[in-house]
Amino acid sequence: MKTPRAVQKLIDAFERLPGIGPKTAQRLTFYLLHVPQSELDDFASALSNLKKQTVICSLCFNVSETDPCHICTDLSREESKICVVEQPLDVLAVERAGTYKGLYHVLHGAIDPLNNIGPDELYIEQLMKRLKNGNIAELILATNSSMEGEATAMYLLHLAQQLTTKNMKLKTLKITRIGRGLPTGADLEYADDMTLKRAFEGRMEY
Amino acid sequence: MKTPRAVQKLIDAFERLPGIGPKTAQRLTFYLLHVPQSELDDFASALSNLKKQTVICSLCFNVSETDPCHICTDLSREESKICVVEQPLDVLAVERAGTYKGLYHVLHGAIDPLNNIGPDELYIEQLMKRLKNGNIAELILATNSSMEGEATAMYLLHLAQQLTTKNMKLKTLKITRIGRGLPTGADLEYADDMTLKRAFEGRMEY
Repeated sequence: MKTPRAVQKLIDAFERLPGIGPKTAQRLTFYLLHVPQSELDDFASALSNLKKQTVICSLCFNVSETDPCHICTDLSREESKICVVEQPLDVLAVERAGTYKGLYHVLHGAIDPLNNIGPDELYIEQLMKRLKNGNIAELILATNSSMEGEATAMYLLHLAQQLTTKNMKLKTLKITRIGRGLPTGADLEYADDMTLKRAFEGRMEY
Repeated sequence: MKTPRAVQKLIDAFERLPGIGPKTAQRLTFYLLHVPQSELDDFASALSNLKKQTVICSLCFNVSETDPCHICTDLSREESKICVVEQPLDVLAVERAGTYKGLYHVLHGAIDPLNNIGPDELYIEQLMKRLKNGNIAELILATNSSMEGEATAMYLLHLAQQLTTKNMKLKTLKITRIGRGLPTGADLEYADDMTLKRAFEGRMEY
């Protein structure tokens, strides 16, 4: 069957999204045929305003309404800590957990040579500038526990250590990696080797 | 963290779609932040044009660009057969299979008393009108094999049989139900009781 052009266009748009295959794209599109026009228009304007009404914070590079963002300008936060994450979504996750009260730095990716993403494609230079300028006491590397995330953390560790040897002010900089091990609720029995290895390395005294 | 309003709006819009939870909605939205504005605008216009540029065919009630739709106006199709399906997506699936060359009738749902969908909410009256008016030789009930789909098929069977007793012209109307049994590639071992029961009922002689 020839699908109506308007329908096919929306199916194609959905299919371009990550994790949405042709079947899901069809299902979503045909679902939206039953939805009032006003809701479709709201959805459409949310899409086209997404980037127009947001900016990237020039300090932490998180997605924000204002520049600098509301975290960077929040005086109640510990300015001496920077938590480095890969994506804006990661900031959301850490904020949801609610334990961390410092600042962030969003890299917008991880070093991934197979996909042509090197250090220059990420906001790494800007992070080093922040370290040099500010009175940072702790740098928390909270990139993912994937191969790319670990490589990025190692790279940042290396760069930051170079900085500390050159710069007397940074002598006391503590560089930490977010803890890795068994996730809450997980069975040890089903944990993979790498997770268990990390869990033993990261064991803590009572 | 306070998510920027523009971001939150799009997350909310995605969350309203069926099968998309809060995590997926977030993931899709943050993915779209990396996409060029032109692509966002294309997506937005596809959404708001979806219903403006499509109509419901007044004969078969399928979603179409023209009224009547290109299947109803296609002279090469067998006009004496009507295949009743629940949704426009089902027409797509049957057309993809490519064996059926007759016409369709889209009910836009199935009888589902628990969700307040009775026969009046579906295009059942219009189907009966088509049966009365046209020279229909076969009515194929191809609603889903779910409880609602089976109930709808039974209801349609009942109505159509009533018609045939009243209307001499419809004496020869054949009413069939789409075959049910083991799907292709399935292991008998893992089939549920109901599927096996239907498969035995629907067995065919070589």
